[in-house]
Amino acid sequence: MKNSKNSLLRTGLGLLLAAVPLPAMADEGMWLYNDPPRAQLKEHYGFEVTDAWLEHLQKSSVRFNSGGSGEFISEDGLILSNHHVGADTLQKLSTKEKDYLQQGFHAKTLEEEIKAPDLELNVLMGIEDVTARVNAAVKPGMTDDEASKARRAVMAEIEKESKDKTGERSDVVTLYQGGLYHLYRYKRYTDVRVVFAPEQQAAFYGGDPDNFEYPRFDLDVCFFRAWEDGKPAKIRHWLKWSQEGTKDGDLVFVSGHPGRTSRSLTMAELEYVRDVQLPRGMQRLYRAETILSAFSARSLENQRRAKDELFGVQNSRKARRGGLAGLQDPALFGKKAAEEKTLKEKIAGSPELKEALTAYDRIAAAQKVIGENAKLYGLLEGGGAFNSELFGIARTLVRAAAELPKPNGERLREFAEAGLESLKLSLFSSKPIYPDLEELQLTDSLGFLIEELGADAPLTQKILAGKSPSARAVQLLAGTRMLDVAFRQKLYEGGQAAIDAAKDDPMIALVLAVDNEARALRKIMEAQSEAKQQAHGQIAKAKFALQGTGTYPDATFTLRLAFGTVKGYEEGGLTVPPHTTLAGLYERSKEQENRPPFDLPKTWETAKPKLDLNVPYNFVSTADIIGGNSGSPVVDRKGEFVGIIFDGNIQSLVLDYAYSDTQARAVSVDSRGIVEALKNVYGADKLLGEIRTGKLTE
Amino acid sequence: MKNSKNSLLRTGLGLLLAAVPLPAMADEGMWLYNDPPRAQLKEHYGFEVTDAWLEHLQKSSVRFNSGGSGEFISEDGLILSNHHVGADTLQKLSTKEKDYLQQGFHAKTLEEEIKAPDLELNVLMGIEDVTARVNAAVKPGMTDDEASKARRAVMAEIEKESKDKTGERSDVVTLYQGGLYHLYRYKRYTDVRVVFAPEQQAAFYGGDPDNFEYPRFDLDVCFFRAWEDGKPAKIRHWLKWSQEGTKDGDLVFVSGHPGRTSRSLTMAELEYVRDVQLPRGMQRLYRAETILSAFSARSLENQRRAKDELFGVQNSRKARRGGLAGLQDPALFGKKAAEEKTLKEKIAGSPELKEALTAYDRIAAAQKVIGENAKLYGLLEGGGAFNSELFGIARTLVRAAAELPKPNGERLREFAEAGLESLKLSLFSSKPIYPDLEELQLTDSLGFLIEELGADAPLTQKILAGKSPSARAVQLLAGTRMLDVAFRQKLYEGGQAAIDAAKDDPMIALVLAVDNEARALRKIMEAQSEAKQQAHGQIAKAKFALQGTGTYPDATFTLRLAFGTVKGYEEGGLTVPPHTTLAGLYERSKEQENRPPFDLPKTWETAKPKLDLNVPYNFVSTADIIGGNSGSPVVDRKGEFVGIIFDGNIQSLVLDYAYSDTQARAVSVDSRGIVEALKNVYGADKLLGEIRTGKLTE
Repeated sequence: MKNSKNSLLRTGLGLLLAAVPLPAMADEGMWLYNDPPRAQLKEHYGFEVTDAWLEHLQKSSVRFNSGGSGEFISEDGLILSNHHVGADTLQKLSTKEKDYLQQGFHAKTLEEEIKAPDLELNVLMGIEDVTARVNAAVKPGMTDDEASKARRAVMAEIEKESKDKTGERSDVVTLYQGGLYHLYRYKRYTDVRVVFAPEQQAAFYGGDPDNFEYPRFDLDVCFFRAWEDGKPAKIRHWLKWSQEGTKDGDLVFVSGHPGRTSRSLTMAELEYVRDVQLPRGMQRLYRAETILSAFSARSLENQRRAKDELFGVQNSRKARRGGLAGLQDPALFGKKAAEEKTLKEKIAGSPELKEALTAYDRIAAAQKVIGENAKLYGLLEGGGAFNSELFGIARTLVRAAAELPKPNGERLREFAEAGLESLKLSLFSSKPIYPDLEELQLTDSLGFLIEELGADAPLTQKILAGKSPSARAVQLLAGTRMLDVAFRQKLYEGGQAAIDAAKDDPMIALVLAVDNEARALRKIMEAQSEAKQQAHGQIAKAKFALQGTGTYPDATFTLRLAFGTVKGYEEGGLTVPPHTTLAGLYERSKEQENRPPFDLPKTWETAKPKLDLNVPYNFVSTADIIGGNSGSPVVDRKGEFVGIIFDGNIQSLVLDYAYSDTQARAVSVDSRGIVEALKNVYGADKLLGEIRTGKLTE
Repeated sequence: MKNSKNSLLRTGLGLLLAAVPLPAMADEGMWLYNDPPRAQLKEHYGFEVTDAWLEHLQKSSVRFNSGGSGEFISEDGLILSNHHVGADTLQKLSTKEKDYLQQGFHAKTLEEEIKAPDLELNVLMGIEDVTARVNAAVKPGMTDDEASKARRAVMAEIEKESKDKTGERSDVVTLYQGGLYHLYRYKRYTDVRVVFAPEQQAAFYGGDPDNFEYPRFDLDVCFFRAWEDGKPAKIRHWLKWSQEGTKDGDLVFVSGHPGRTSRSLTMAELEYVRDVQLPRGMQRLYRAETILSAFSARSLENQRRAKDELFGVQNSRKARRGGLAGLQDPALFGKKAAEEKTLKEKIAGSPELKEALTAYDRIAAAQKVIGENAKLYGLLEGGGAFNSELFGIARTLVRAAAELPKPNGERLREFAEAGLESLKLSLFSSKPIYPDLEELQLTDSLGFLIEELGADAPLTQKILAGKSPSARAVQLLAGTRMLDVAFRQKLYEGGQAAIDAAKDDPMIALVLAVDNEARALRKIMEAQSEAKQQAHGQIAKAKFALQGTGTYPDATFTLRLAFGTVKGYEEGGLTVPPHTTLAGLYERSKEQENRPPFDLPKTWETAKPKLDLNVPYNFVSTADIIGGNSGSPVVDRKGEFVGIIFDGNIQSLVLDYAYSDTQARAVSVDSRGIVEALKNVYGADKLLGEIRTGKLTE
């Protein structure tokens, strides 16, 4: 459910997926905060969206830049998110001696809270439509490449102006894949401290086997606190904790950051996803899962080191396998084809719109070029051949030296002025990098390179330098100084001269050896992306003209509002009720004879007699969510916190391509289950006091 | 270490791997029993191989047709093999209620021994050179296809004559890939009963993480008994159990059935293995491992059902990953290239041999055709698209109806008269087939078909019949009667008319729908195999002429003699001594905090105070082995049993392509460790008595 940030999968193709609106039905939609589903909510639920209600929910919502969502729940900066969103930070803070990810963490005082090494949180402060200004920069007659450059330049300019003016993080977001451009301004928090995390065995009870399944029994929560100027941050908008929780049939809202959907792809794109992109991605996931599992199994310390990454890989594998199964189902795929056919006929029937039909052909043509370059692009630019954190760091340093001297608008997008603070937070992070895991993964990816390009290809030979994958990985890792954060800072500050002087570092040398090819491929892919974007923009405009707005764009890891009903579903002739209870946790453990990952943490074994086992623990609703929504608050009509999204069921895995409310459900931890656990399992009275009162208590 | 019999990997390409002899060095070699390394043993070890010594070892050795080796150890038919060789049978005999694979089995009386449902054991009784007769059947001027048919016909004829005359199983074995043809006659045992198996946790201690690693602490043994006419079989040749065991530096012999090596491939073939065959095979293994692991994790019963197959997949994954790493190492690959170059130069220098140079080109040409057809062949004939036991049964029945009416020599090889008893043993086996596992694997392989051929390919559409992979699998499995053994027998006996009448069975219908394509592909592949075989035969003859015989052919899952020294090795600057002790088992468990798969079985926890922890447990030697040798006896100069092969270390995984004694080692259970465990962990006094005396005791 987390927005995948696994470097294995950063092929960049994700960026190329495109969007065009479809008419929204039932509880469908990941709605823009500046274009909320007022009419739908009024009509179906008699609910009136007020501006105050909306602003409060918006500013109580938090984006975890590491790939998830969260929410403020006290005026003193207390934040709730999922344990599996916090896992990245918990892993980075852990050592062999104190494993917070596995054993949990509980700061009983403010002083005991521990600072995340590189976590950035964003709170959306405002949205501004900048479509006209962006479009004006692209002049008729420009090539795709020129248009791409012009657009990038104007976006960087808008962002920098906004950042200079407001001091806030400013991102121009492409919506409807070029139908609209909105400027999103965020307040950033970079002093973020961990307050409380349960044991992973409570948070992720049932592990990978129960992931994306329902019924569930997970305490998938992690509490953080935003600090400013050495004190807990003072927060104006935060969510009140509901006293009542939810019952079957209740209307609920979800406010979070869905990472990516692909609902508006054309058939040419969907075929590519089904036939090439997903199968190829799955191959890499199967391989990564096998290798990380085998590494983990060799020792307890290995298991600890690989844990968070293995979770990410397994999570993606399950999610994508579900998505691919959807696309391989003629029923779903046929429906998408029929929808496109209908839309094309309508466009063809309108003299002023029918020019937009050519957009489909341009998308297909661009997709073809993307397909031709995808393999090499994935290897060189997408991390396929270099699955190594240290390689990534070396590449960022090499490119920073080349990009930063350029005018803001001409840089590669990740080096634009407005994002440099975030980039440095990550680049100079003190998070641990494990040499054995690096060696395993770099060796494997160099072997993958040979398999993909052949042992005798000039590029292979240049990269392997006459060595076996294993020997080459050992040489690169033994010789590089990229582990040293101070050295990274020195290279970053020193610019091109420092890079030139560091060419004896084998990782820097390797980056330099492949960077021309990698950049050339990226240029090709970005031009095709631009071509697709313009074409999608044209289709989107035709669609606006035919159907009006009142819809929502594909997900973009920006704040969206979803809504739905607390509601069970039918499966295999049986009714799955919406809520589970704490009793179910103990039953699940018993039926599995308490074997991992169904074993109970000791705290929960001990606490059983004290617990009210009838308390609701997890629940499902029809809200429209996807990876990235993890940690999103679920609120009731009053805007009070009733639960936190942490997963979707197995039937929800096709939501990437099409919404359905037949069986697909969003899965949340119930606010009442959280309170019962904090009180009677963890004795977290101070934290409970803050939740109840909305402020720090003595 | 077991000879892979995983249907996922039965691409048939294994059959096409070819052999040509290289000069043997040091302890290298998997020697023919009718051409043993007398000179090497005399020269290096001063050991004289007598005919009596050789015959005794030969006839004490047992082949497990399920893919391993074993040995007689009493005159009353007691047989020892590995637990992981017996696992297939233990799995078939287990139910949800009594899981012999996991919990072990101990028959305290003859009556308690349980019969394996479909296990066939072979004991090699004699070898006869039939090269001249086979070669005479292939006339000059025949096409590859005609030559292939003629050769198959004469081999079937020789086998049938031998079977009719001796009553023994008779197989013509192709050695040196066509350099020699030998007739192997076997005594068959099909009433085989399980006597004793430890818990899998003792046998396969350390699980997949420690598989192919050393030091090891495994009691990888399983005792069987051959029965005849309702009584324990009377055996003339069986191995005496050594009183002394081995010490560092001892000469030892290994007598077993190495499954396949690829040491004599030409560079064209090796490149194909490195660039296509292994990477493609690995992809399927990663996928199978992920899917089976996820299935296993969902429940204890799932875990039980998938256990043996998952072990096979993980074992193959590790073995092939090691093999691929070897081929991707320019040092090893360059050495193979240099050897081929030298040989070619020698051939070119001899006027009467140089015609043999064309053989290399013919092999390369055949390899090219194989490569062009491999994908489709793997899908249709190799199980890639139909990973289902029930599909396999349906196909065997459909083909039996078509093949059996043909003259013996014209049938597909697996339907030749001499092998029909073995075929029926497997076809009518009462082993359990689990519908949920079938559904999982058939769904997945139909999805794989879509990924490989595309959703719109006519063949895909014919197979999927407009359904999703999941829906199609459910339909096929719900409608077929292939689970019913009596129905299988009826179809088999009823021939073509019965098949015609069973066309409403959806699995039979599916087999019929693809059988023409599948057979056509097989024909192409067999013709190429024949072409390669002739070419390899020509190279082999040139090599015999240049270097003489006194060498050994690539492994063919027939009985071979290997030898070597009990000897440790250096790794990472440390010396790994040859023997481990029982104490090491408890140390390994402690360092892993007893977590699975490093947890101790209860029996071993309890027994610790009684055990002599200094008793040797496992040991390594330089003997030349490969998968299929699992369960092979290790004997000393006297021919007495001192251990049983069960694995190779990680450095041995390149032995498929080239022998080395630097670090590569064969791993055995020490005879003394077996005795100590039987006595003080399992209290198996009667079994111990039989081992000590060589006959059943009261």
